Amino acid sequence: MIQKPRGTEDLIEAEVKEFFALEMIIRNIVDLYNFSEIRTPIFESVDLFKRGVGQETDVVSKEMYTFFDKKNRELALRPEGTAPTVRAILENKLYINEKLPLKLFYFASMFRYERPQSGRQRQFNQFGVEVFGPKSSELDAELMCVAVNILNAIGIENHTVHLNCLVNDEQRKKYIIDLKEYLKSFDLCSDCQTRIETNPLRVLDCKVDGDKFVDVKDMKDYLSDEDKQYYDDLKKDLENLGIDYKEDKMLVRGLDYYTGFVFEIKDDKGSTLLGGGRYDKLVNELGNIDLPAAGFAFGMERMILALKNNNISLSPQSSLDAYVIGLSKKAKQFANILLLMLRNAGLKVDVDFMDRSFKSAFKQADKYNAKNIIIIGDNELKENVVVIKNQETKNEKKVKFEDIVKTIIEGK
Amino acid sequence: MIQKPRGTEDLIEAEVKEFFALEMIIRNIVDLYNFSEIRTPIFESVDLFKRGVGQETDVVSKEMYTFFDKKNRELALRPEGTAPTVRAILENKLYINEKLPLKLFYFASMFRYERPQSGRQRQFNQFGVEVFGPKSSELDAELMCVAVNILNAIGIENHTVHLNCLVNDEQRKKYIIDLKEYLKSFDLCSDCQTRIETNPLRVLDCKVDGDKFVDVKDMKDYLSDEDKQYYDDLKKDLENLGIDYKEDKMLVRGLDYYTGFVFEIKDDKGSTLLGGGRYDKLVNELGNIDLPAAGFAFGMERMILALKNNNISLSPQSSLDAYVIGLSKKAKQFANILLLMLRNAGLKVDVDFMDRSFKSAFKQADKYNAKNIIIIGDNELKENVVVIKNQETKNEKKVKFEDIVKTIIEGK
Repeated sequence: MIQKPRGTEDLIEAEVKEFFALEMIIRNIVDLYNFSEIRTPIFESVDLFKRGVGQETDVVSKEMYTFFDKKNRELALRPEGTAPTVRAILENKLYINEKLPLKLFYFASMFRYERPQSGRQRQFNQFGVEVFGPKSSELDAELMCVAVNILNAIGIENHTVHLNCLVNDEQRKKYIIDLKEYLKSFDLCSDCQTRIETNPLRVLDCKVDGDKFVDVKDMKDYLSDEDKQYYDDLKKDLENLGIDYKEDKMLVRGLDYYTGFVFEIKDDKGSTLLGGGRYDKLVNELGNIDLPAAGFAFGMERMILALKNNNISLSPQSSLDAYVIGLSKKAKQFANILLLMLRNAGLKVDVDFMDRSFKSAFKQADKYNAKNIIIIGDNELKENVVVIKNQETKNEKKVKFEDIVKTIIEGK
Repeated sequence: MIQKPRGTEDLIEAEVKEFFALEMIIRNIVDLYNFSEIRTPIFESVDLFKRGVGQETDVVSKEMYTFFDKKNRELALRPEGTAPTVRAILENKLYINEKLPLKLFYFASMFRYERPQSGRQRQFNQFGVEVFGPKSSELDAELMCVAVNILNAIGIENHTVHLNCLVNDEQRKKYIIDLKEYLKSFDLCSDCQTRIETNPLRVLDCKVDGDKFVDVKDMKDYLSDEDKQYYDDLKKDLENLGIDYKEDKMLVRGLDYYTGFVFEIKDDKGSTLLGGGRYDKLVNELGNIDLPAAGFAFGMERMILALKNNNISLSPQSSLDAYVIGLSKKAKQFANILLLMLRNAGLKVDVDFMDRSFKSAFKQADKYNAKNIIIIGDNELKENVVVIKNQETKNEKKVKFEDIVKTIIEGK
C-alpha cells in the first residue's frame, strides 16, 4: 500500500479540529491588533532563501527540498516564512508610505528535510507575524504582546520571555573577535568548529556546547549608543505593558537576518514555544529599499503538542442538532427533504446512509452526540408526523411535519 | 529583484480577505451537513497519482511537479485531492464500519504545470468534499445539494447542473468499440488521436473536437440494469430535493477514476464552476478494500473570479473601533497601555507608529475606517483625560481614563 512520505502527517478527526480551533483563536487576536493576512506560494526561487535566510544556515545549506521545474528554474519548498513575505512586499510594492506600517500574519506550511521528531515533521505548519515600516520599540513591544496574548488565550500560562539584543556592524565585528578568542579554550563539537568560521554567534546556542559558555561576554555590552538606547526603550515599553522578561545573553536565533532585539518564549520545561526578533536589513538585502522590520513565528504542531502536555483542548465537542432515521425506502426519501429543511434553517443534521439496524443507528446518533433523534416510519408518514426523541430529556413525542423545524430549534 | 515563480500568486489585502470569507461560508455549510475536515501532505509518492489518477491523464503524464528527495524517493506536489484522501483513509484505517459514511472536506493547494491563465495558476487552491461508505443515490444527491447550496449562499445563482452516468466493465468495453467506430469518420486533433487509444471517453469532452460529436450514441443506453436503476434513483432524489439538472451525454470529466454519475455545474456563460462524481473502484485500486465513494471539488480562484464577474464581494469592509494618536513621547507610551486595555476588552484598535503629522494621522484613521479617533496630548494626560472623536457623528468630547473603554464599546 502506498504510504504518506516520511516526515509528513495526515490531519484528521479530533486533531484537525484542534488545529482549526487554534487557528481561529489566533485570527481573532491578530485582528484586534489590526494585522492583515498574507499568503505566499509554497515554493520560491532557491536564491530567495540563499540570499534572504543565509547560505550558511542549517536551514538553507542542509534542509531544503529543492527541485528544478521544466524550464530549469531551481525552486525550493519554502523552509520559513519571512523571506517570502519580504519578497512579496517588494514585488507588490506594499512598502509605500500610506500602507505603513505593514502588519502582516500568515498560516503556512513549511518544509525542512530533517530527522522527523515529535512536534517537528518535515512538513510542518507555522503561524507568523511580520511588521514593516517603523523602527519602533513600541511596535516591537506590541509584537511580543501579541505573542503573550496568544499563549494566555490558549491557556499556556507558565511561560518565560527570553530577551536579547544582537550587536551590529563594526561592534559585531569587535564582539566576534573577542568571542573567537574566548572560544579558543574550549573543545568544540564539529558543528561549532564550522560555525565559528561561517556564523560564529550561533555557537552560543549550540545544543551540545552552549551550556559551557556561561561566562562569555555579553554582546549587549558592545551595542552602539543608538542600539543601546533602542534596547533600553524596548525594555521600558515591555515593563509598561506588564510583560515580564528575562535577559539572556546566549539567545541568538538560528537565522542570519536578525539585527536587533531577539526573543523566545519558553515553556516551564525550558523548551522554546516561539521566537523572533528585528531584522532591519533584510528588505534592503533583497530589494535595495530601507524598510525596518520585525516578526515572530511558531510551529502550529509545536503549540498543539504544548496544549496536549497541558491537557488543554480548544475545539468544542461537536454535536448534531438531530440525527434522522428512516425506517423504509419511502421514509428515507422523506428524510432527505427533511434534512434539507433543517439545514436551510441553520441546523446541523445527518441521516443514516448505511441501512443500519435500528439499534445500531441509535448508537451512531450517540457517536455524533445528537441532541435529538428523528424517527420516520411508514405509519408516521401516513399520519404526517415523525417521532422526535430528545436525547437529553429522553422525552419522545410525535411532531407534525410543519412543527419539526421549530421543535428542533427550540430544543437547542 | 527575486520574483515569485511563474504560475504562482501572492494573496494580499482585499484578495486574501475574500478568500477567507469564501472559506468560512463554505465551512459553515459543510458543517451543517456533518462533514469533517482532512488535511493531507503537500507532496505524495508519484506512484499514488500514477495509480490513483491514471498514468495516461494529462494531469499525471504532463502536468505534475515531481522531484526526488535525498533518499531518492520520487515525490510529486499533489495535483488533485482525491487520491491523497483515499491514501489517508487507507493508511489511517478510517474505513471501519462505525466510522462510515466518511464525509470529508478539504481546502488544499494543488500544483499543475500548465500554461498559467486567468483563474488557473500553477499553484491553485481547491475546496473538495469526498464521501466514502455507502453506494447511495441519496448521498450522491446530498453531495450535489452541498454544491448547489454553496453556490446559492455566495450568490452565484445562474448556474446549471449537468449530469451524466459513466458506463462500467463489459458495457464500457462495448460502448468504446461503438465509439471508436463512430469516431472513424472524423478528422481528430492530435490529442484526440492519442486519447482514442489511451482514454477514449475523453475524446467526448475535447475542447477542439467535442462539438462535432453531437450525434454520438449516449453511453447511458449501455448501462447495466443495476447501474441504470441507480441512475434513475439519483434523478428521482434530485427531483425530490428540487435540484434542476440537464442530462449531458458528452460529460466525462478529466480523471480516470470515475465509475458512476458525473456532474458539473456551469455558470451562465457555460464555463465550469465545479465538478465531480462517483468513483467506486479507486479505494480498491489503491488498497484492496471495497469502499464506494463520490466527491466533487472546485478551484477557489475560479470561484473568486466568478464572484468578481458577478460583482459580489463576500468580505465585510474592515474597520477599527478606534485609532489612537499620541502627540508626544509620553502620550505614545500611554497610548500603548490604552491599546492593551481596549484589545483586552475585545476591541479592534491601532495607533500611529509612523510619527505622522496630525493631519496625515487622521487620513490614516480614515483609511482604516476607524469609528473613533482617540487623541492624547500632554495637556490631556495632566487632566487624566483623552479626546474621543466619533467619526460617524463627528462629535468630539473629553473622556476620563476610566471611561474610555466603556465609551468605545457603547459607540460600537
